[in-house]
Amino acid sequence: MSATSNEFFVGIKPIKYNPQASVDDLLVFKQYNQDEIILGKPMHEWLRFAVCYWHTFRGIGADMFGASTFDRPWDQSGNEMLIAKDRLRAAFEFFTKLGVKYFTFHDRDIAPEGETIEQTEKNLDEVIQLAKELQKQTGIKCLWGTANLFANPRYMNGAATNPDAHVFAYAAAQVKKAMEVTHELGGENYVFWGGREGYMSLLNTDVRKELDHLAAFLRMAVEHKKKIGFKGQLLIEPKPKEPTKHQYDYDAQTVMGFLNYYGLNKDFKLNIEPNHTTMAGHAYEHDVEMCSRYGMLGSIDSNTGDSSLGWDTDQFPMNLRDCAFVMKTVIAQGGLAPGGLNFDCKVRRESTNLQDMFIAHIGAMDCFALALRKMARLFDDKKYGILVQQRYASYNETDIGKKIEAGVATFEELHAFIKKNGEPAKTSGEQEKFEVIFNRYLD
Amino acid sequence: MSATSNEFFVGIKPIKYNPQASVDDLLVFKQYNQDEIILGKPMHEWLRFAVCYWHTFRGIGADMFGASTFDRPWDQSGNEMLIAKDRLRAAFEFFTKLGVKYFTFHDRDIAPEGETIEQTEKNLDEVIQLAKELQKQTGIKCLWGTANLFANPRYMNGAATNPDAHVFAYAAAQVKKAMEVTHELGGENYVFWGGREGYMSLLNTDVRKELDHLAAFLRMAVEHKKKIGFKGQLLIEPKPKEPTKHQYDYDAQTVMGFLNYYGLNKDFKLNIEPNHTTMAGHAYEHDVEMCSRYGMLGSIDSNTGDSSLGWDTDQFPMNLRDCAFVMKTVIAQGGLAPGGLNFDCKVRRESTNLQDMFIAHIGAMDCFALALRKMARLFDDKKYGILVQQRYASYNETDIGKKIEAGVATFEELHAFIKKNGEPAKTSGEQEKFEVIFNRYLD
Amino acid sequence: MSATSNEFFVGIKPIKYNPQASVDDLLVFKQYNQDEIILGKPMHEWLRFAVCYWHTFRGIGADMFGASTFDRPWDQSGNEMLIAKDRLRAAFEFFTKLGVKYFTFHDRDIAPEGETIEQTEKNLDEVIQLAKELQKQTGIKCLWGTANLFANPRYMNGAATNPDAHVFAYAAAQVKKAMEVTHELGGENYVFWGGREGYMSLLNTDVRKELDHLAAFLRMAVEHKKKIGFKGQLLIEPKPKEPTKHQYDYDAQTVMGFLNYYGLNKDFKLNIEPNHTTMAGHAYEHDVEMCSRYGMLGSIDSNTGDSSLGWDTDQFPMNLRDCAFVMKTVIAQGGLAPGGLNFDCKVRRESTNLQDMFIAHIGAMDCFALALRKMARLFDDKKYGILVQQRYASYNETDIGKKIEAGVATFEELHAFIKKNGEPAKTSGEQEKFEVIFNRYLD
Amino acid sequence: MSATSNEFFVGIKPIKYNPQASVDDLLVFKQYNQDEIILGKPMHEWLRFAVCYWHTFRGIGADMFGASTFDRPWDQSGNEMLIAKDRLRAAFEFFTKLGVKYFTFHDRDIAPEGETIEQTEKNLDEVIQLAKELQKQTGIKCLWGTANLFANPRYMNGAATNPDAHVFAYAAAQVKKAMEVTHELGGENYVFWGGREGYMSLLNTDVRKELDHLAAFLRMAVEHKKKIGFKGQLLIEPKPKEPTKHQYDYDAQTVMGFLNYYGLNKDFKLNIEPNHTTMAGHAYEHDVEMCSRYGMLGSIDSNTGDSSLGWDTDQFPMNLRDCAFVMKTVIAQGGLAPGGLNFDCKVRRESTNLQDMFIAHIGAMDCFALALRKMARLFDDKKYGILVQQRYASYNETDIGKKIEAGVATFEELHAFIKKNGEPAKTSGEQEKFEVIFNRYLD
Repeated sequence: MSATSNEFFVGIKPIKYNPQASVDDLLVFKQYNQDEIILGKPMHEWLRFAVCYWHTFRGIGADMFGASTFDRPWDQSGNEMLIAKDRLRAAFEFFTKLGVKYFTFHDRDIAPEGETIEQTEKNLDEVIQLAKELQKQTGIKCLWGTANLFANPRYMNGAATNPDAHVFAYAAAQVKKAMEVTHELGGENYVFWGGREGYMSLLNTDVRKELDHLAAFLRMAVEHKKKIGFKGQLLIEPKPKEPTKHQYDYDAQTVMGFLNYYGLNKDFKLNIEPNHTTMAGHAYEHDVEMCSRYGMLGSIDSNTGDSSLGWDTDQFPMNLRDCAFVMKTVIAQGGLAPGGLNFDCKVRRESTNLQDMFIAHIGAMDCFALALRKMARLFDDKKYGILVQQRYASYNETDIGKKIEAGVATFEELHAFIKKNGEPAKTSGEQEKFEVIFNRYLD
Repeated sequence: MSATSNEFFVGIKPIKYNPQASVDDLLVFKQYNQDEIILGKPMHEWLRFAVCYWHTFRGIGADMFGASTFDRPWDQSGNEMLIAKDRLRAAFEFFTKLGVKYFTFHDRDIAPEGETIEQTEKNLDEVIQLAKELQKQTGIKCLWGTANLFANPRYMNGAATNPDAHVFAYAAAQVKKAMEVTHELGGENYVFWGGREGYMSLLNTDVRKELDHLAAFLRMAVEHKKKIGFKGQLLIEPKPKEPTKHQYDYDAQTVMGFLNYYGLNKDFKLNIEPNHTTMAGHAYEHDVEMCSRYGMLGSIDSNTGDSSLGWDTDQFPMNLRDCAFVMKTVIAQGGLAPGGLNFDCKVRRESTNLQDMFIAHIGAMDCFALALRKMARLFDDKKYGILVQQRYASYNETDIGKKIEAGVATFEELHAFIKKNGEPAKTSGEQEKFEVIFNRYLD
Repeated sequence: MSATSNEFFVGIKPIKYNPQASVDDLLVFKQYNQDEIILGKPMHEWLRFAVCYWHTFRGIGADMFGASTFDRPWDQSGNEMLIAKDRLRAAFEFFTKLGVKYFTFHDRDIAPEGETIEQTEKNLDEVIQLAKELQKQTGIKCLWGTANLFANPRYMNGAATNPDAHVFAYAAAQVKKAMEVTHELGGENYVFWGGREGYMSLLNTDVRKELDHLAAFLRMAVEHKKKIGFKGQLLIEPKPKEPTKHQYDYDAQTVMGFLNYYGLNKDFKLNIEPNHTTMAGHAYEHDVEMCSRYGMLGSIDSNTGDSSLGWDTDQFPMNLRDCAFVMKTVIAQGGLAPGGLNFDCKVRRESTNLQDMFIAHIGAMDCFALALRKMARLFDDKKYGILVQQRYASYNETDIGKKIEAGVATFEELHAFIKKNGEPAKTSGEQEKFEVIFNRYLD
Repeated sequence: MSATSNEFFVGIKPIKYNPQASVDDLLVFKQYNQDEIILGKPMHEWLRFAVCYWHTFRGIGADMFGASTFDRPWDQSGNEMLIAKDRLRAAFEFFTKLGVKYFTFHDRDIAPEGETIEQTEKNLDEVIQLAKELQKQTGIKCLWGTANLFANPRYMNGAATNPDAHVFAYAAAQVKKAMEVTHELGGENYVFWGGREGYMSLLNTDVRKELDHLAAFLRMAVEHKKKIGFKGQLLIEPKPKEPTKHQYDYDAQTVMGFLNYYGLNKDFKLNIEPNHTTMAGHAYEHDVEMCSRYGMLGSIDSNTGDSSLGWDTDQFPMNLRDCAFVMKTVIAQGGLAPGGLNFDCKVRRESTNLQDMFIAHIGAMDCFALALRKMARLFDDKKYGILVQQRYASYNETDIGKKIEAGVATFEELHAFIKKNGEPAKTSGEQEKFEVIFNRYLD
């Protein structure tokens, strides 16, 4: 297979919706029906799925204990730039056959780094031109771009938090260009994931200095965004650890705290990856909910980890319950646009068939589609939402509650209230009741 | 409410099956239809649910940070023995209204400890007589009994593994009686959970000596079982930690290894609690599957933990996916009898309504019933099982595979085979395909 | 032993410093020499040890699986208030014999709750008067007080974050009084630990509403502090989980972010407990260092957990390396005053001898004293500090570094710099070198 | 630098023992004095350090998020076999300068794999000849060899547990040769680490079949060992997870159980890696102690993990307390021979200086040497050992204890004993006392 060929996924036809398909008819959606209207919008607008370029087109099936297992038809020609272009064509074929409307990318996975920054930028520009053509042909859009500031050895001690100002400068130069090409592709967001912004050992690290530098870096990004007229949303993606022992962007609340402290909260939202959330010791849906409630949920890297493993497995989300929790929050905030559900997932190293790429994405899309249907029913029904509100009714309905809510109560007044009114009534939290009701919407 | 009263759960009627019940009609089964035939047996035979006495009737809603929150109508009379009997009557009312056929108990939660061992045994005998009467009246059976060898301060440094032989002797005296009363109630199994059989610190512990003593203790139990003519299955319940830092019965494989080493493997099977399995770092279903495949799965404490918490939360199992994994193994081994699915679960400390006890059990029973239905379909269909078998076909179908399977191959012969035949073909593990198919049976 | 007796710890004399004591002479300090001058201050000023009242005088040796094992001479008289006073006298005897200068307390562990809030406050006032007398007699001071807002069933669904405004009011009434009595005892700080400020399930919780209420509560506390003229430092103690599934004050950075967002950052500092830090997935010393570098480290609950357990074990800190990391940060910020090192630790449930209370505190105090000595040598020597600074030298010594540091660089300028200067040099992070040097100061 | 050169570590002289060296004089041992007699044996006999070939000479400073950072002088010539030989010469220079007496290796890291098995074995033989010459020149010995059955894509679904018999055969062919070359180098042990012997998903796995195959494989290895006259000890190295989700050789007790079940317990001992032990949820020293007490501790991969991280970090052991726990067990069993302390450790990816390799090993060797000294004092003194024994005295000194120990007591007899003797006395576990005493030996 090569650049001159027309097709990389030979024998695979565009994936169709067929709710009656048999259990082992795998190249079919049983749940995802993109134009079906759910709560007033087509499914695809609620779900805004994106395929990620790095795992799906640059993943080679290697891990820390083993070499590449994948043998992809687009990685065959000898020349790096030709391969880059073949790969891009294969990717657009994949996006199209799968029926997703978005993709996401790192600068370095879409085009190879050159000997010099000039050569690197030239390579990038050349591939970006092809991407624009393919976008025009297919209608596929860019959900977000980002810069890979972690793979090159120069970043081993951090990028914006590197002890060496020269490395900081290199990272700045790279992000500048990455923002520009994302803008060029019509990217709807731009993501910062602090791959090596963290520490390996507190013994050799000045954490405060490094965090101050990180803030300085992000301020420059905000400025540059304005300068180039990029209107996309800037996003930060939290992760607690890996590759470093401690990543500065630990979890949603740590990042929101950082943004507030350094005055960056108006300029950024968050891109939440549930596998990172669980690595931080939280429930799968915690960060999604937590930042949504503060108006800070921008986008989601919809994957899953494995709760018995301590590293980032980036698996395809196949658990209806988890996806339902996410969709509950997404529906509650009225959708994710301009963000989306990016599949930051990789097929297992052992899943070496080309078909496995399709099956994995289809399984995840069906899982989210079913979660959307189920949660739409929960919202439609209103019963569940009312039950939650009723728990807090005293803050709307009693004098003392209203004063607390308004911020005008004092300890003395509340003390007097208790002297007069004594013990509160005991009220069951009814957790199991909420679980059973939630399950009934899922069944 | 007291011993003279006829009803403790006033206003709650026997729980019925009604698949059309509305989402918030909670005192109803929507899935559990006890006499419905599934794969040739009624649901209740597959599921063999048991209510546990300790959490459900002795739980007081206390935790390490707070006092009791529960206010139960059967705990009102002043006298300990009267309360014990009221509580037992309440329990049988609960079992009956809920529609489970089994209960499980610790010696010390069914009757209070006295000043002396004689008094303690007298208390126990008195309550056991009432239990027998209530069993006769209701038809409720005893799935298993066990001795509480962890709550009394005398066991703080262990029971059978205590550094003091006098404590070992006390534990033996207690288990002797607990086995006898379990036998008297027609218990179908007897369980050993090594509550404090473990260490808090290696610095003050001789682990080998303690494990030798544990084995000696279990041998005496086997002997005593024969002596009294008890035909029930002896079971060991693994747990990795809590209350001790390290429990000797860490997980299924550790226990199976211990039983083999000390020659006890014919006399014991395992009672697996998934919350313990996940605390040991395994997937929810791991221990269930692992000991089933070695013919050692005797019974299940069907509860769940919380994957983001590091302690035993003993929550009601409400996750269809988890329950389906368990039922897959249970169906594969043809059922659990004489074991069952014991709800070693407690309503949350905040769930203070009497009704919460019913709702929690109903939710868990419905979850397992639905899991049974879904997995029955998977077995009925055969497609899934065949896909797994096909992965191992070479061991049945090729010469070299058959020799390996028969244990007659040698390194030299296999070396020669490779010299002749070279590299094996690459075969995808297709994990995502298996996940999607499994999901389709769940949807 | 009773209120009329003069001594509770019979046979135990004041603990002396004797560096030559034999290995098993345990009622002796081998390292802690309170008046020895280290880096210009006596040891006791660097260390400011406090004994905590709840674990050491209210702990009963119970856990979730077992009843009380402790049999304390001060818990013998029948009347609750007499016991409370005996216990307080025993405590002051303990503080004095041990040679610590501070204690910490919860309102509810120092005096029993009454039937009404009036009775409760009367009990508290009565015991506080005795405490003041004992303080005068002994010179022992109060490091901090706090309110127990988690043990009473009324707080089961939270205190300041309770869905019921009536409970919020109760918590306010209680904190009002607790702040007042802390002020009366000359407390140098006042601590908020959000025992049940968190959620058990996202399904029944409005997290945003609850956090807004928490902020409102803390604002009232700040106001009340001013009103009563209390000059002590207000402190928040983070914890990630337990008793709730998710505590809102997850870790240091989450709390700092919360304080900033709600405009409370000038009024509060943090009280860090390393056992909570490790439960949040961080290194032992992480939160201490992180909040120190933002000027937010107020005090430390100097205990340790067990890295293989997932719950709060509150063990005595006996690990030199951990204590050394903490003291490194404490020395770097010039000390902890008005905060201190509070032993939020409990002897193991199995450590039932009265002597064990002394041995545990002595072991921890010696461990910190040795850590102080070792880290003083590290600071004195300056070599280590210079090595860390040198890693960041480029930000002080190069033009581009100075501009970044000053916040005046732009992406365009840095891009131009890279075009001109190319790749940065590769610089080893030398983690192992830092570890070896640190070890050499510890040996 | 190349094969024609005489020296790779230019400017580094053999590392000497100098206890007076300054804190930042890093190419010096401050503790490890190889010929110093400790408890009757020279230090080097107690410690039997080995350098591992894979991390130290094949590690390239790559991780899952970044490319190689190391630039080694022995990896410069273009030809794979020439590089292999240069690398080996560099390794022997390193072993010699460092002053360790042993090395360990995988077949595939010492010589490159060829196109065919014939070519691969030829490559291996050629490098092994050079290794033998270098051994003769330097006196360096081989502690153990092993086969890499995880890196090549053919093993992605397992080696001995692969669903395909052809892959099983390939693994057998490879181990056959690896055992033979280990024998040729005078290896004192041969290790099996089940790199991919485990499962990624229970959904596509027949665990029983795979474990039966694993046992069959190991039986063939025992047979082959006899056939070739290899007298070294066979060892299995447990690991709980990574790269697979669940490794069959989970921890020490799982492996001991497996060996017993399949009748292999006489033929194998264990090689314990503490980083794996902590990943399995145990204390650092747990597996070492546990298998030592059953006579199954064969060797140790002396490294450390990071307790806040969930993956294998393979760091150099620099924590005195951890090393002391290990040495306590090693001294108690009289040494490790024919096993040793293999540094299965890698310098951090950021530690790019050649010197970092020396500093890391020196730091670890000093740490173990100091631990040996401290623990020798603990054994010499006898006080600690006696305190532990005294806890169990009742089993030697009372009638009932002796009967239990002898396995002749019955439940009935023990029941009668309790009726006669009543409650046991309460005995403090004194954990803190043991901790303080242990610390005093460490200080």
